[in-house]
Amino acid sequence: MQGLHLTADLRGCDPAAPVMHDLDALRTLCLGAVRQAGLQAVGELFHRFPPPPAGGPAGVTGVVLLAESHLAVHTWPELGAVTLDAYVCNLGEDNSAKAAALIEALQAAFAPQQIQRQALQRG
Amino acid sequence: MQGLHLTADLRGCDPAAPVMHDLDALRTLCLGAVRQAGLQAVGELFHRFPPPPAGGPAGVTGVVLLAESHLAVHTWPELGAVTLDAYVCNLGEDNSAKAAALIEALQAAFAPQQIQRQALQRG
Repeated sequence: MQGLHLTADLRGCDPAAPVMHDLDALRTLCLGAVRQAGLQAVGELFHRFPPPPAGGPAGVTGVVLLAESHLAVHTWPELGAVTLDAYVCNLGEDNSAKAAALIEALQAAFAPQQIQRQALQRG
Repeated sequence: MQGLHLTADLRGCDPAAPVMHDLDALRTLCLGAVRQAGLQAVGELFHRFPPPPAGGPAGVTGVVLLAESHLAVHTWPELGAVTLDAYVCNLGEDNSAKAAALIEALQAAFAPQQIQRQALQRG
């Protein structure tokens, strides 16, 4: 179960962008990016939160279970913020480049003004 | 979206323990531990993989979406290995102690011989 876990915490994203608050838009983005990166989805779960008390669009959370481990995305439209997690196990083959491609594609889709990235060796 | 992301990578777990290969056992463990830690589940997804080519029990992956972010668990019975992720957003209140309690409870349930823990500040 040795693998690579990449995180990207994004700020300055446009709260009005569909991927920030629209469940179907986020789902389409995530599943497309997983496929494009050459990773294999085995399950998916997306959830839209109730609108914040101050009004405005609600955040969305999405997880794609992968044969190689998982992708998780959380959005906070009220903060213009997003967190991304791509964890790939490297059992059998090295999936590190695929995890990096997945994070890059998602990051680009949110067009953030600031990005904080971290990389963890797992296992 | 500032928060705390705790990981624990476990080795030397008993492959025969139900939580290593039985979807319902892992689901019961995760949902109970989330509740006990005082976190709020808003969705869940569990998946059992096909048995490995060499035989033996198959691994299970589980994700619990939280109002506070997410829990993810992957098991590899063929390696006696498990990875745990508990990510909590600290928007509104500091959920760090709850994340730590969640990881401790899950870790104890797998009774590993070795533990590698990491903590990431997010956001």
